[in-house]
This record gives sequence, C-alpha cells and structure tokens, in this order.
Amino acid sequence: MPAKQLLQTYADRVEQVLDRHLPAANTAPIKLHTAMRYATLGGGKRVRGALVYATGEALGGGPEQLDAAACAVELIHAFSLVHDDLPSMDNDDLRRGRPTCHKAFDEPTALLVGDALQTLAFEVLSSQNRGLTAETRITLVRILAVASGSLGMAGGQALDIEATGKDLTVEQLIEIHERKTGALIHVSVVMGAIAAGVGNEALQALDQFGRAIGLAFQIVDDILDVTSDTQTLGKTQGADEAANKATFPAVMGLEAARERATTLLESALASLKPLGDNGRSLAEIARFIVNRHY
Amino acid sequence: MPAKQLLQTYADRVEQVLDRHLPAANTAPIKLHTAMRYATLGGGKRVRGALVYATGEALGGGPEQLDAAACAVELIHAFSLVHDDLPSMDNDDLRRGRPTCHKAFDEPTALLVGDALQTLAFEVLSSQNRGLTAETRITLVRILAVASGSLGMAGGQALDIEATGKDLTVEQLIEIHERKTGALIHVSVVMGAIAAGVGNEALQALDQFGRAIGLAFQIVDDILDVTSDTQTLGKTQGADEAANKATFPAVMGLEAARERATTLLESALASLKPLGDNGRSLAEIARFIVNRHY
Repeated sequence: MPAKQLLQTYADRVEQVLDRHLPAANTAPIKLHTAMRYATLGGGKRVRGALVYATGEALGGGPEQLDAAACAVELIHAFSLVHDDLPSMDNDDLRRGRPTCHKAFDEPTALLVGDALQTLAFEVLSSQNRGLTAETRITLVRILAVASGSLGMAGGQALDIEATGKDLTVEQLIEIHERKTGALIHVSVVMGAIAAGVGNEALQALDQFGRAIGLAFQIVDDILDVTSDTQTLGKTQGADEAANKATFPAVMGLEAARERATTLLESALASLKPLGDNGRSLAEIARFIVNRHY
Repeated sequence: MPAKQLLQTYADRVEQVLDRHLPAANTAPIKLHTAMRYATLGGGKRVRGALVYATGEALGGGPEQLDAAACAVELIHAFSLVHDDLPSMDNDDLRRGRPTCHKAFDEPTALLVGDALQTLAFEVLSSQNRGLTAETRITLVRILAVASGSLGMAGGQALDIEATGKDLTVEQLIEIHERKTGALIHVSVVMGAIAAGVGNEALQALDQFGRAIGLAFQIVDDILDVTSDTQTLGKTQGADEAANKATFPAVMGLEAARERATTLLESALASLKPLGDNGRSLAEIARFIVNRHY
C-alpha cells in the first residue's frame, strides 16, 4: 500500500478510537468537552498513531490490541500542541489549518483541554482492554509517562525555550529535539511492539528505528518551516525563525539538514531488515516522514 | 495521636517519597526540575496523601504499599495548584506562603511544571513497586485518571469558570465542588483502600466517607477564604469574592455553610463505624478537615 493510503487507513482507525474515548460534546462541562474534541479530532497526519499500528502489525499484533496505545499517543500529542500554542509559549494562531484551541475558545479552556487530554491518555491505557494483560498495560503507562514527562517531551520543550536566541551546536540541538519530538515518536514504535507482545530482541531493532525516525521527523519539520508555506503546513510558516528558535537548517544549513534526514532514513530502513516483508508498512511511513511536504 | 501530629507524620513520609521521585534539581532541564521541586516540596497540609495512608493503614496495609498512591495524589494536587494559579486562570501571586510558581519562575515554566507533575503521578504509579500487583497498579492509574480528568477535577475547574459571576443553587455549587476538589479527596481514600488490597464491601463504606469529607473540605475552604487572613492561609484571603466566584458562604450564607460542614463531618464519622478502632486516624483527619483554620 502506498504511504498516503496506508496513513489514511491508520488515521481513520485512530480517529474512530479517539472519537469513542473522548466524552461527547453534550456532556457537562460542555465547553471543555467541545474544545477537547476540537483540539483532537478531524486533523493531523496521525504519524504517531500510525507508527503504533504499523509496528504492532509488523510483529503480528491485531488492531484491537493496538487501539489504546495508538489513541493514547495521539492524545498526548494533541495535548502538547494545545499547550505549545498558548500565548505564553509559542503564541500560535493556526494549527492543522484552523484557529488554535485558545483562539477558537479561550485561554483557560485551552489550558484545561491540554490537562484533560493528558489525563485521558492514561485513562485509556488503563481501562479494560481485550487482549492486553495488566502487566502490558502498566508497562505502556510507564513508558508513555517517561516519554512525555520532564525527561522526555516536556523536558525537551523546556530546553527549547532555554535555547531560544542562543547559538547551539548540532549535538545540543539533537539533544533538545530527541526529547521534544523524538521521545513521543520513538515511544509510539516501542508501545506498538509491547502491545503486540514482543520480546526484547525485536524491541532493540525497533528501538533504533524509532530513534532515527524521531529525529528525522523534527529535522524535516524544521526544514518545512523554512521551505513550505502556511497553507500547506496548516500552521504558520516561518514561525521558528520569527521566534528565533534554534533549528537544524539554522544551525547546520539547509542542505546539510536535508542530508542528515536522508542518512537517518537509511539507518531507519536498515534497522527494519530483520522484519523482512513484515516491515514494509513501517518503511513506507519512514519514507513519508522524510519526504513529506506538510 | 492528635490530628496535627498524625498529619505531620504522614506529611513527613509523603515529602520523602516525593523528594525521591522528583528528578534532582541539577538534572537537565535544570530550571524545569528546580521549579517542579519548588511547586511540590516543602509545603501544604498533605491532606490527600494523609488520607491514602490513614485509609490504607486502617485496612491493614503497610506504608510501603501506600507510598506510590500517596505521592501520586499529591503530585496531581500540586499540578492543579500550579495551573490554577496561572494568570489566565485565578492569577494568584501567593501559594503555601510563597510566590506562586509562575511568579517565582515564569509562565512557560509553570505551564510545563504542571504538565510534567501530572505525568510524574502516572509514572510513579506505574513504576515497579513492592507489594502491589500489576492489576492493583493499573486500577490505581485508572481511578486517579478518572478523578483528575474532564469528568473530575479538570471538569470541576471548567464548571467553576463557567459559573463565575452567575447565581447558582446550592445543588449546582455542590456539583461543581464535588468535581473540582471532592473528586481528588474522595479518590485518595479509595486509592488507599485499593492499595491495601480491600474488597468491595469495605470500599463502599469508605466511598461514602470520601465523598462527605471531599465536599466538607471545599465548604471549609470557602468559609476560610471569607473569615481567615492571608498569612494564616498562605494564599490570598478574599480571592474568591474578588474573583466573583460562587462559594458556599455566598450561596447559602456563612452560618448555613458551617452547619453543612458539620453535618457532613457527622455523616463521614458515622460511615467509619464498621472499621471500629482502626478508623481512629481517619476520624482525626476528618475532624481536622472541618475544624482547621488554614
């Protein structure tokens, strides 16, 4: 299946799971629930959810086993976008081609939306779930928490703020982005594997895959911020440069950043070899991550 | 043991557990970790953590079994305070007798502190833990998530914002506060029971206890906001009235609010009867909650 079709299939599935787990818009508090659904549904590439499904399926897991993990990573991602867009953070007006949550609603609501989406991610993982043992579910909770917290995504965001306006080495920039974006992409792969019930050996190969595409994703994001346009991106083009953010094109130059992304893709694809034909969907997603235009 | 001494013993214990689970201040990102420790350690009555310990011990659980649950509820509470104090929410300058997190650090840091403290709560519950099975730990994750999310604490906060400046009935006010404050106090009791490994029967009696003191706690908070002073409270006195918040004294009058708190205390104490002497610590904490001056 070509990458776009494959991603659409996974995106449709995770959208349904998200829709099922998000409280209905007419459940009180109505404004909060309407805003939670606005911030989560109907948009996004769903790369993280797709990685959960593609990894789990490559290892023989059925989609029902993978739904909770796919839903949880997308909820954490949605929460992080809502908080990152707030005026005190990146102060962005546009996200996924629509007004950001605090623009469409208001700032206190957006704050609570992010808080409650994070909570919901852990609620979904810990709810009764056919096919997953308590041991598997608690492992999923733990690794998602570690990837999202102060040593993972939130920590990367803090490092990114500290680094704004400073000259960074490539190594420093990699450290920030491995946490800020890489940790959640990486853990999506690991969660897919664990939900499918794999042992440590398969995990190691996938661990390398997850790390490589996690970093590649952010490098390409940085490149697109320079080379694309607002309509294609669905978020404000040039926002990084305007905010004086440290980015890969700024630190190492556009061409070198492109080369680095290509090298990471090659390394990611190489780490899929032990999976043979079963790794095809993951390979397609990896290629999409590096070659995408939005 | 008198309530104050009892609470101090539990507070000392949960402080040590929190200190152990919070990343060291010299771990990168240093500012984030320093702020997380500032917002969590060295203050607060630790009523929620004490309820976990007192409930668990009343049912024969050892403190090691209860540490993770006590730590997790205090982390969720600390996260909620940091976010509630933000300029876009209550815009408070003082908390636990010190500048609020966004005043002592800055707003983006306080936002990330709250996010990361919530994550840490779920990480602590899901980490390896002597004496708790995976089944027990995943149950603790689930009930804490439900109590904290859009149908619990975050939802109560949203309802509270919507209600600001409006005339409410007592019933409407109770609904808001059962979620906003009650849910986390109530779940502290239930988590203590579950971590101690009790069956459904003991849980039902304690469920009623938890609900009664959860609501009583908020009524007394509202009363103290009117009758106490800033130094004693450690937070700005009169903040509710200044913000035009719906409170129990405002809706039902000060005396009726006091009577309601007393009735709830009596109901809470009655529900402890099946525990006999083992319920003494819980009774002390319930009395403290209603009779406190801060």
